[in-house]
Amino acid sequence: MTVKTNDKKGISGFSKLSKDEKLRWMAESHFNNADEVVQEMESFNHPNGDLQKTLNGFSENTISNFPMPYGLAPNFLIDGKMYTVPMVIEESSVVAAASHAAKFWSKRGGFKTEILGTVKVGQVHFTWDGDYEKLVRNFAEVKALLLEETQHITHNMRKRGGGVLDIELLNLNHLEPDYYQLKVSFETCDSMGANFINSVLEEFGKTFKRKLKQDFGAEPLIIMAILSNYTPNCVVRASVECPVSQLGKFPGEMPSEVFAQKFYKAVRIATIDPYRATTHNKGIFNGIDAVVIATANDFRAVEAGGHTYASKDGQYRSLSHCSIKDGIFKFWLDIPLALGTVGGLTKLHPLAKRSLELLGNPSAKELMSVVASVGLAQNFGALRSLVTVGIQEGHMKMHLQNILRHLNANETECEKTQAHFKDKVVSFSAVRDFVNTLR
Amino acid sequence: MTVKTNDKKGISGFSKLSKDEKLRWMAESHFNNADEVVQEMESFNHPNGDLQKTLNGFSENTISNFPMPYGLAPNFLIDGKMYTVPMVIEESSVVAAASHAAKFWSKRGGFKTEILGTVKVGQVHFTWDGDYEKLVRNFAEVKALLLEETQHITHNMRKRGGGVLDIELLNLNHLEPDYYQLKVSFETCDSMGANFINSVLEEFGKTFKRKLKQDFGAEPLIIMAILSNYTPNCVVRASVECPVSQLGKFPGEMPSEVFAQKFYKAVRIATIDPYRATTHNKGIFNGIDAVVIATANDFRAVEAGGHTYASKDGQYRSLSHCSIKDGIFKFWLDIPLALGTVGGLTKLHPLAKRSLELLGNPSAKELMSVVASVGLAQNFGALRSLVTVGIQEGHMKMHLQNILRHLNANETECEKTQAHFKDKVVSFSAVRDFVNTLR
Repeated sequence: MTVKTNDKKGISGFSKLSKDEKLRWMAESHFNNADEVVQEMESFNHPNGDLQKTLNGFSENTISNFPMPYGLAPNFLIDGKMYTVPMVIEESSVVAAASHAAKFWSKRGGFKTEILGTVKVGQVHFTWDGDYEKLVRNFAEVKALLLEETQHITHNMRKRGGGVLDIELLNLNHLEPDYYQLKVSFETCDSMGANFINSVLEEFGKTFKRKLKQDFGAEPLIIMAILSNYTPNCVVRASVECPVSQLGKFPGEMPSEVFAQKFYKAVRIATIDPYRATTHNKGIFNGIDAVVIATANDFRAVEAGGHTYASKDGQYRSLSHCSIKDGIFKFWLDIPLALGTVGGLTKLHPLAKRSLELLGNPSAKELMSVVASVGLAQNFGALRSLVTVGIQEGHMKMHLQNILRHLNANETECEKTQAHFKDKVVSFSAVRDFVNTLR
Repeated sequence: MTVKTNDKKGISGFSKLSKDEKLRWMAESHFNNADEVVQEMESFNHPNGDLQKTLNGFSENTISNFPMPYGLAPNFLIDGKMYTVPMVIEESSVVAAASHAAKFWSKRGGFKTEILGTVKVGQVHFTWDGDYEKLVRNFAEVKALLLEETQHITHNMRKRGGGVLDIELLNLNHLEPDYYQLKVSFETCDSMGANFINSVLEEFGKTFKRKLKQDFGAEPLIIMAILSNYTPNCVVRASVECPVSQLGKFPGEMPSEVFAQKFYKAVRIATIDPYRATTHNKGIFNGIDAVVIATANDFRAVEAGGHTYASKDGQYRSLSHCSIKDGIFKFWLDIPLALGTVGGLTKLHPLAKRSLELLGNPSAKELMSVVASVGLAQNFGALRSLVTVGIQEGHMKMHLQNILRHLNANETECEKTQAHFKDKVVSFSAVRDFVNTLR
């Protein structure tokens, strides 16, 4: 195999091209209908040029905007306050399920939340062959210097009530020769804090290297300095509860007692079986990510931290829990959420800014409460469907509608197709083939 | 606390309102500048009304589109073929890092991939107090009936070479009284398969219930029937390798041998420390999710399956691995990816359709190879920065540019601000305050 650097699909200096030139190159080297492709891609740009420039600047090599559906889940009663929650998600049934669950629980006291902690974590990883015992003895002095030499970075955050909470020295030699960590805990107030944390840690690395060389005659090798997205002490609990008797009627005339028992069992299964836990938690993140994206927070960070938390006891398990005691049905979720309502893109993305306004410009803690409640609502909605009618009934109906819309089916075609697929699997090709037989 | 159902922010019958009415209600009940908000939200709609209707239909209660930057990472040489990869992501530096790593490896043989399996999983969860030993003895007959009675659902998939591969009966009584599973494995060819799998499983549930009642005199309670997003046998391996001596020069005149050792150590740390593993894998998903979204696949499914896989041996660990042997640097990633290139929204979302065309209309397997390669490239890029100059240098520069653009700073203001923040933490408020002192 030879490296085809002269292949028309390879290119040098791409990042230096203008947006128009990038788009043109892509279209001409990858498509036969280049003009059409350019025109289509451009049609997704925002008509306001300045605003579009802002969007372009969020990432690199941008050629267009990818539109995701922006929807609303109203009637979220959380800690006594009513919210209309913005959700950005491409999957059908998610917003409908969240809205349904929100309304259901708004009549039963709503969601209650509790912030269990807001501590974030960063690490300076290093190897060192110096005198560890001496470093331990002198660590208070080292720590003081680290804090002192980052005062210019931490100044604003300290004014807001945050900053560096603690610096621990961890000896991990038993796992890897000469390997140590500075494990640092932070309070970052209403910001997610990634930039702040990373700036502090990189500065710590420099000071630490100098100090150890100077005082201990052995320079550490700083492997890397960076925040951790695992934040087991930045956690929110969201819960709902009501008497089993007040859960109401369910599809197929299922009594509330049977529903509660099946629901409890479904959560129990997600606790003991990793295959089920994965999909159970995936449903929770359907709701969580939709709000995280709508507020321009980082959903990869939230996913990573949440899933690691789900595996913290050595087996991957459900993030939500259910109990039925003394006739009370209780359902709750503990989830680590490192979110910001200032900083990052929260104010820069025009719709994220609107999302936060829609939520009443919440603090980061309040946003944690909202996001966790939506995750719990989503999980409730998914399990409610699963233990009663199954999820396919709703999914298939919506998927079929999407396909029919895409095929520009008329009313008669829609009716006939819906009847035909009542007991069949909806797939794009199957629906297209059937509609073609009608035409 | 009373439920404020009459609160102006609560509403009944919301889902039945038109899109315009939903938007109007949201604006009027949550904003003081309702007209402005309506106008702004509408400005994000696509000018083509039919196309916008298609986008609206993907989810529920949609009031607008949320634009995400659509960018390109060119020069991805994967299994000897050159790709320009579409990436949808709001985080800065991700596309730049992927592009840089792609180009770097394109000169060193490119990415090699191997599909380790394509088996997907679904489960019928049930409790039963019937004669288990007898069920085991007769399971071949039960299985045959399950397959027979889903032939109308599996027909098309079987024609394409897929279908149900196997049905296992699992006894999990030791974990939960009377709890069993039908664990079903599937081949879903070029579709992600969620709808197919769920339809088959729900039908299995019905048949199974009837059959057990009839033959064993005891009806099982089907708790739920649904696919699993944990697919440890639907895995792709992506790798890069070259002699250490050919890795080239790195920032700060770091020799390739030092770079390789620090890089190796960084991967090793992510293998032994869950705090680091979380962020390490988060970086991999920065790349993976960007392609998954650009092709309208389900990133929550991919995240959930990948993170569970990372915790499969009882501790959450790095998904990528590194070795240096006989002077050869090797870096690879094993990741479960359940993706589709047909079905779902892949053809329905206009830009997802274009993304797949841009990639040459790949099969699902080929898309797995591309996505995994981008994940590996992302990880390489992140570690490359971390073990050399740190990630803040690049991040901060881009973040500052975003903020200055937002503040409509002129050239002089930009220059002065960039100089001022050279050694300070960039935050929106700090930059705004500084720019204001210049005005």
